[in-house]
Amino acid sequence: MSSPVRATVVQASSIFFDTPATLDKAEKLLKEAAALGSQLVVFPEAFIGGYPRGHNFADQSPRGKESFRKYHASAINVPGPEVDRLASMARKYKVYVVTGVIERDGYTLYCTVLFFDPEGNYLGKHRKLMPTYRERLVWGFGDCSTTPVYDTPYGKLGSVICWENRMPLLRTAMYGKGIEIYCAPTADSGDTWVATMRHVAMEGGCYVLSPIQFCRRKDYPPPPEYLYSPTEEDVTPDSIVWAGGSVIISPTGEILAGPNYEGEGLFTADLDVRVEIPKAKFWFDVVGHYSRPDVLSLTVNNRPLLPVTFRSSPSKIKDDEMDECKDV
Amino acid sequence: MSSPVRATVVQASSIFFDTPATLDKAEKLLKEAAALGSQLVVFPEAFIGGYPRGHNFADQSPRGKESFRKYHASAINVPGPEVDRLASMARKYKVYVVTGVIERDGYTLYCTVLFFDPEGNYLGKHRKLMPTYRERLVWGFGDCSTTPVYDTPYGKLGSVICWENRMPLLRTAMYGKGIEIYCAPTADSGDTWVATMRHVAMEGGCYVLSPIQFCRRKDYPPPPEYLYSPTEEDVTPDSIVWAGGSVIISPTGEILAGPNYEGEGLFTADLDVRVEIPKAKFWFDVVGHYSRPDVLSLTVNNRPLLPVTFRSSPSKIKDDEMDECKDV
Amino acid sequence: MSSPVRATVVQASSIFFDTPATLDKAEKLLKEAAALGSQLVVFPEAFIGGYPRGHNFADQSPRGKESFRKYHASAINVPGPEVDRLASMARKYKVYVVTGVIERDGYTLYCTVLFFDPEGNYLGKHRKLMPTYRERLVWGFGDCSTTPVYDTPYGKLGSVICWENRMPLLRTAMYGKGIEIYCAPTADSGDTWVATMRHVAMEGGCYVLSPIQFCRRKDYPPPPEYLYSPTEEDVTPDSIVWAGGSVIISPTGEILAGPNYEGEGLFTADLDVRVEIPKAKFWFDVVGHYSRPDVLSLTVNNRPLLPVTFRSSPSKIKDDEMDECKDV
Amino acid sequence: MSSPVRATVVQASSIFFDTPATLDKAEKLLKEAAALGSQLVVFPEAFIGGYPRGHNFADQSPRGKESFRKYHASAINVPGPEVDRLASMARKYKVYVVTGVIERDGYTLYCTVLFFDPEGNYLGKHRKLMPTYRERLVWGFGDCSTTPVYDTPYGKLGSVICWENRMPLLRTAMYGKGIEIYCAPTADSGDTWVATMRHVAMEGGCYVLSPIQFCRRKDYPPPPEYLYSPTEEDVTPDSIVWAGGSVIISPTGEILAGPNYEGEGLFTADLDVRVEIPKAKFWFDVVGHYSRPDVLSLTVNNRPLLPVTFRSSPSKIKDDEMDECKDV
Amino acid sequence: MSSPVRATVVQASSIFFDTPATLDKAEKLLKEAAALGSQLVVFPEAFIGGYPRGHNFADQSPRGKESFRKYHASAINVPGPEVDRLASMARKYKVYVVTGVIERDGYTLYCTVLFFDPEGNYLGKHRKLMPTYRERLVWGFGDCSTTPVYDTPYGKLGSVICWENRMPLLRTAMYGKGIEIYCAPTADSGDTWVATMRHVAMEGGCYVLSPIQFCRRKDYPPPPEYLYSPTEEDVTPDSIVWAGGSVIISPTGEILAGPNYEGEGLFTADLDVRVEIPKAKFWFDVVGHYSRPDVLSLTVNNRPLLPVTFRSSPSKIKDDEMDECKDV
Amino acid sequence: MSSPVRATVVQASSIFFDTPATLDKAEKLLKEAAALGSQLVVFPEAFIGGYPRGHNFADQSPRGKESFRKYHASAINVPGPEVDRLASMARKYKVYVVTGVIERDGYTLYCTVLFFDPEGNYLGKHRKLMPTYRERLVWGFGDCSTTPVYDTPYGKLGSVICWENRMPLLRTAMYGKGIEIYCAPTADSGDTWVATMRHVAMEGGCYVLSPIQFCRRKDYPPPPEYLYSPTEEDVTPDSIVWAGGSVIISPTGEILAGPNYEGEGLFTADLDVRVEIPKAKFWFDVVGHYSRPDVLSLTVNNRPLLPVTFRSSPSKIKDDEMDECKDV
Repeated sequence: MSSPVRATVVQASSIFFDTPATLDKAEKLLKEAAALGSQLVVFPEAFIGGYPRGHNFADQSPRGKESFRKYHASAINVPGPEVDRLASMARKYKVYVVTGVIERDGYTLYCTVLFFDPEGNYLGKHRKLMPTYRERLVWGFGDCSTTPVYDTPYGKLGSVICWENRMPLLRTAMYGKGIEIYCAPTADSGDTWVATMRHVAMEGGCYVLSPIQFCRRKDYPPPPEYLYSPTEEDVTPDSIVWAGGSVIISPTGEILAGPNYEGEGLFTADLDVRVEIPKAKFWFDVVGHYSRPDVLSLTVNNRPLLPVTFRSSPSKIKDDEMDECKDV
Repeated sequence: MSSPVRATVVQASSIFFDTPATLDKAEKLLKEAAALGSQLVVFPEAFIGGYPRGHNFADQSPRGKESFRKYHASAINVPGPEVDRLASMARKYKVYVVTGVIERDGYTLYCTVLFFDPEGNYLGKHRKLMPTYRERLVWGFGDCSTTPVYDTPYGKLGSVICWENRMPLLRTAMYGKGIEIYCAPTADSGDTWVATMRHVAMEGGCYVLSPIQFCRRKDYPPPPEYLYSPTEEDVTPDSIVWAGGSVIISPTGEILAGPNYEGEGLFTADLDVRVEIPKAKFWFDVVGHYSRPDVLSLTVNNRPLLPVTFRSSPSKIKDDEMDECKDV
Repeated sequence: MSSPVRATVVQASSIFFDTPATLDKAEKLLKEAAALGSQLVVFPEAFIGGYPRGHNFADQSPRGKESFRKYHASAINVPGPEVDRLASMARKYKVYVVTGVIERDGYTLYCTVLFFDPEGNYLGKHRKLMPTYRERLVWGFGDCSTTPVYDTPYGKLGSVICWENRMPLLRTAMYGKGIEIYCAPTADSGDTWVATMRHVAMEGGCYVLSPIQFCRRKDYPPPPEYLYSPTEEDVTPDSIVWAGGSVIISPTGEILAGPNYEGEGLFTADLDVRVEIPKAKFWFDVVGHYSRPDVLSLTVNNRPLLPVTFRSSPSKIKDDEMDECKDV
Repeated sequence: MSSPVRATVVQASSIFFDTPATLDKAEKLLKEAAALGSQLVVFPEAFIGGYPRGHNFADQSPRGKESFRKYHASAINVPGPEVDRLASMARKYKVYVVTGVIERDGYTLYCTVLFFDPEGNYLGKHRKLMPTYRERLVWGFGDCSTTPVYDTPYGKLGSVICWENRMPLLRTAMYGKGIEIYCAPTADSGDTWVATMRHVAMEGGCYVLSPIQFCRRKDYPPPPEYLYSPTEEDVTPDSIVWAGGSVIISPTGEILAGPNYEGEGLFTADLDVRVEIPKAKFWFDVVGHYSRPDVLSLTVNNRPLLPVTFRSSPSKIKDDEMDECKDV
Repeated sequence: MSSPVRATVVQASSIFFDTPATLDKAEKLLKEAAALGSQLVVFPEAFIGGYPRGHNFADQSPRGKESFRKYHASAINVPGPEVDRLASMARKYKVYVVTGVIERDGYTLYCTVLFFDPEGNYLGKHRKLMPTYRERLVWGFGDCSTTPVYDTPYGKLGSVICWENRMPLLRTAMYGKGIEIYCAPTADSGDTWVATMRHVAMEGGCYVLSPIQFCRRKDYPPPPEYLYSPTEEDVTPDSIVWAGGSVIISPTGEILAGPNYEGEGLFTADLDVRVEIPKAKFWFDVVGHYSRPDVLSLTVNNRPLLPVTFRSSPSKIKDDEMDECKDV
Repeated sequence: MSSPVRATVVQASSIFFDTPATLDKAEKLLKEAAALGSQLVVFPEAFIGGYPRGHNFADQSPRGKESFRKYHASAINVPGPEVDRLASMARKYKVYVVTGVIERDGYTLYCTVLFFDPEGNYLGKHRKLMPTYRERLVWGFGDCSTTPVYDTPYGKLGSVICWENRMPLLRTAMYGKGIEIYCAPTADSGDTWVATMRHVAMEGGCYVLSPIQFCRRKDYPPPPEYLYSPTEEDVTPDSIVWAGGSVIISPTGEILAGPNYEGEGLFTADLDVRVEIPKAKFWFDVVGHYSRPDVLSLTVNNRPLLPVTFRSSPSKIKDDEMDECKDV
């Protein structure tokens, strides 16, 4: 049976186009969270590699292309040295780490979440299935071979990124895998996001942890290298360009921590899967007593989708990814 | 293309164990809504027939059985004279009517929603798939043969009842049928209900109309005929036993009307499917550009589930139900 | 909604090989039942035509064949003059009559139940599907085209004969048609029959009326014309050769009348479908809330099974039988 | 051909909310049964995990939710350590064991029966298809993928739980699999239960073994932790709250052991499938010579009903369940 | 119920190419039969019009064509003057008459059987469906619109001609119509014919009456007008060219009259449908208790097969023929 | 094209209630037939398992039930060890074997014919569709899924049992499958049986082989264990209780071997399908040139009739049976 856990969602900004500095910042935040007693720390979407906000990426000019080149250069290979560094941080502070990264796979980038355990193991990843709006200009599309749920001493842990959380079938796939600690890093600071997070917690009968970056204009490169609007007249270096709003929600939809829209910060709560989830699922168990598999059934294709398959030598990396998917 | 519509959700109590009086009250409310210019009026769950709240129905004594017998007698056959009366009201006031009823089919009761058009036609029904908690003691289980979506001049109209709205696969089935005016009558007056309604509106990119009854103790029969708690010491005739909280939500999650937790009332908003839904779906179209059918696919069995099938003479009623299901 | 009804099951013997005398006796019994206020009278299996008990019919000798010939001659055509007489009795005493008969169709005999209404209409018939043991030597096999259930002011009326009542799929077909007053004429006087009748009442949530003949040796022709045992030394004219045991059971399995194993008699009870069945089905509705049509579904072929079909001129009699089957 | 077997049905109470103590009690009872020469021991419904009787579970208050949480914690995973312990008991006492348990699958509970052989193998399970009345508040719904019938040296062994025994189509599915030793653990101590058991034995032509718990108030936690009635004034610790009535019935409907409504006990009889079943089926073979598959046919969907199916890696547990279903 | 009847089969030769003389001979034979007390007289196949035996009809020469022309001229229209004469004979001798004729319909001839009642009514006809071997050179093909069975005071009367009797589906069609007095006029004098007749009687559970012509060479025109063999050296005028062998068979296969292969004659027996058929069908009722309509079903198209149908004016004659088909 | 074959029909008695001894006797008879040069040996109806003749089985007393139990125990499973032994005999003596058996399927018995080839393969079976008279007390009803016709080097081989041979539609089904060597094991020693066999040969244009048991009273157990008549005074151990009369008939109705009514024996003839059948069918081809499919058409349902069908795991045995049915 699961034991209680103290969990922290990080509300902070990447240092755009500077991945080593972002990793340093991550370590500082982890240290602070560990000092609060946290055993599980969840970073925002695209924390390592940065989120391509602003005017820049909609631009087909040479400047736009150069922006993409730098963004590609700031992304990380998985596995790779940045992954190793994150793993050693998890070991050092004895925490589970869940963090958004920009993953580089050849020349396509993916919005990915990585998982690490307190022993310093890289556990695996989830690649965002479906980018939103202008994200589609810079990120590729994941598949369901990377939708892992991990058995931890604190409950079953997984992640769904940003507006993927609006996809009812993807959520149901995660419920089908038994997710109990549902991490929802996002780029959405709107006031309706909290409504969605509360709904998901109730629908899934799980804890929901949604970390969101809080960024000022100055966290991105200055103009003219990087533009937020055509003229940048509407922003100062201290303008808030991403307002945060991170939250932690209980399985019955109660807000346990957050939202805060005023600055960076750590938001922490104590979760007790063993005690609270049965009480919630007593009333509503989405893939249990409240499902109707006779009339409504979801099929998930969680094989890797590969454009080219070589019959004699299947990709090793892909095989490993398969192993990461523990269906519970 | 759809034209705009003024829509009203009714927040009012059934007159328990008195179906004729409840129908009179329905007519009074319809008249008021029509006077406001409404062309679509949505009544709460179980409005005709009543919702089995309180201590009474959990009781295995002869009193419990007698309660069920009266409840069964207060329910209505579909079609039947009460359906005819509702149809003529819809014609008289020239409105679409969507209303929760308790449907009697032999000796099993169903929590059902009926649909009527302004010409006075009974269009069809939706039977709740999965009752919640103690509802399972008194209501049977529907199937997906009665999940209609109707083409109206104001947009595609359908209904999902109470905690069915928490079922992601059922909602996806409704999205798959193109629902635009999503009626969600419910028994849930909790503050988390509004979060769910806002989420559903955004997830589905549709208007959501959620009428809820507002009942005082005196709307149910007095003790000892009907008990709310073992001793009834904790309630007076004026105690609020069901707090309302009806809302209308826009496709982007904005609250257009309600919630009010203080009394009966009509809550009205102007909906414009043609204008507002494209704006919302531009960003997120759950069964369109934001779906991933290659990896996530839902199968809906919308054949009637019948324990006994007669090969030469299929039940007429079932046939009619089939006709009601317009997959669009 | 149904009104209450006083119902009588008849426990009496046919006058074997004398159909006119048996009809006279039926009229006398009907008159007595009507005097008790009965509005529904149910006669035993094979009351008109007689039940082929004893040694005689197992005999391949000329005497055995001659017995069959007489038995064939004592059977009645349906429709025919005996049916007309029964109809006029029903009208005279203003009762519903349900009675077992031996039906002659060409040279095959069927164990059949006929239904009459108080206006003197012959409503239709049920032919036993499956004869038991030695019955298979003298009776043919019915089909599901004659398993009618009739809507009466007192509830839905139908009949299943003798050990057909042990066939779970046939019973379920009757439940699927909504039977509420379940007539189970039988030849089984064993003490386990009452257990079966109580079970059926609870399983189907219906009233069960089981009339059984009470016969002495002298109700059959004397030896040597008709033999009960090879030597007949073990019987006197007054020996009980069929012990009765008729019962009426409530929808919750309570015995309302009978069993009596000592003589002929009328057993009467007041039935109230409207009041008692909802209370029973609240707990268990075999084709409603307690069915699982998603995993268990019965298909009933209720077309007539005809060895020869004439395409241009289908047999009239068969057509009539079809009309009798009202699926409700 | 089958050999004779001595079989015992256990009439005893669970120790509520204390699964380890209940397992100790199970071992003590098994030892006693083995001393009587029993080779097959059948425990009551929900013996491991307990039956949620009384006022407590109908309560929507925090106390009601806390009761469910404890009940969920007392349930067992299948397979799991409690299953292993039961298997080793079966081996130690060299008996077939059939026992009711409360099975935990994620956060939904199922009322399940487990089967063990004398070699100490866990054979498989049956999950109750349809809970009754307030059971629907705490137990989920099984499907037909877990309706096994096992070939043993004593005959074909299977189980149907409580009012599932009233479902004619489920019983017919079991008959279709050839069940000969039909275990019917139940919560029903009513006097009509014996009628149903006798009927089932005759209908199926099989031995029926129906163990029922015998519980006093003190077998459940004391108030206020656990309430039997709102005030508990109507019960003392010694009050009988569940009256037993276990029985063993022969294929012709004869009562071989029980019923006793006065205390805990073991009820034992010698069964001889090889000798007694042919004699019973000579007269009535429900899926053999007395069936009418031409007009009445049952379809059983015995695939697992899964709300979510993962195409590349089907759940292991589900596969095992499939193997348990031996259609004979 | 049917009364007993004395029946005669006629074994005699046509007078070839002389229809008036053949009618005179028919009357003489009828008078003799009536003197024996016969109430039913059955004449052989093709008695009026003659059977085209011998070398002549296989010949494509002008002589062959001239033979057909004469044969066509000797045939009779139905209705027509010869039919009227036969009807008046039936009335005069107060017998049912069944007789083979050669029917002329335009330029096609049919091998037909006509039926008359003792009141002198022409009842209708049966046209042979399928001619045998060289018959196909001179006769057309009938259909199932002329397969009547008539209700007489002595039982249900019909006819099947010659090797049609070998057609199991045609016989089954007749059994389906309830035939009890089965007339089988034939041209087959072989010793296996009796086996077939006994089989048909048992299969159909009916009386079988099979009249066969007895002809000497001299009953046909002399050579060279009409040839029996190319040279006629192998025959004398007294040679038997058709050996008779008429029989009457009981429903259990017993030979009641005939066969005689030595001369013309009348063969007579007393039939008692009411007594003998039930005894036979007790054991085997081909379309009753011994049929398996669930797995073996015959469809009979008994609409007239017309090469040309005029929609506005359906053939009157055809309509009348339809009326003759009384399905019983 | 088929080659000629020497065929033997066995006229011998089962050893009742002693299946191993009957198998020994079968082997002895096969050896003798092989010594005569036979390549096809046909045993009588119910040879393995025995035919339930006499008074015993009509008895409802415990003795009657005990008789059935022993009879059930003497029957054989198909497939099973006795089938294996018969297969090895066929291989040892290099003959086709066709034999009547009593088949046990659960608790219903079937009168079945098994087919084996000279390589020792069990080919399949035919289950009697419709038992006759008292057979209905002990045997179930087959269906058309087991009406195989096998292609052998000697012609197409199949079987129809006893009075099934009187069923014109079943025979027509066999003709439709092209049967050429028609085995008709029977219990009928009457003199009319030969007539039926000759008719069938002519009707079907096929060889007919009809083996019949020859039994004395002593081939059945002695009284009082087994009774032939109530007192057994009318029989001595040597009384003939079943008189044989086996025959082999040519396609034109000629008797090639038998009948003999005086003792056990082997009756042998040489069959030449390739030569004799065309000669017969030239005149009459029942499903060829002499059929009238425009007006007479038979529909055969040769799907297995199953009271219960499991959707995911259809019964293996039924699948095998399906493979045996080769429609040619």
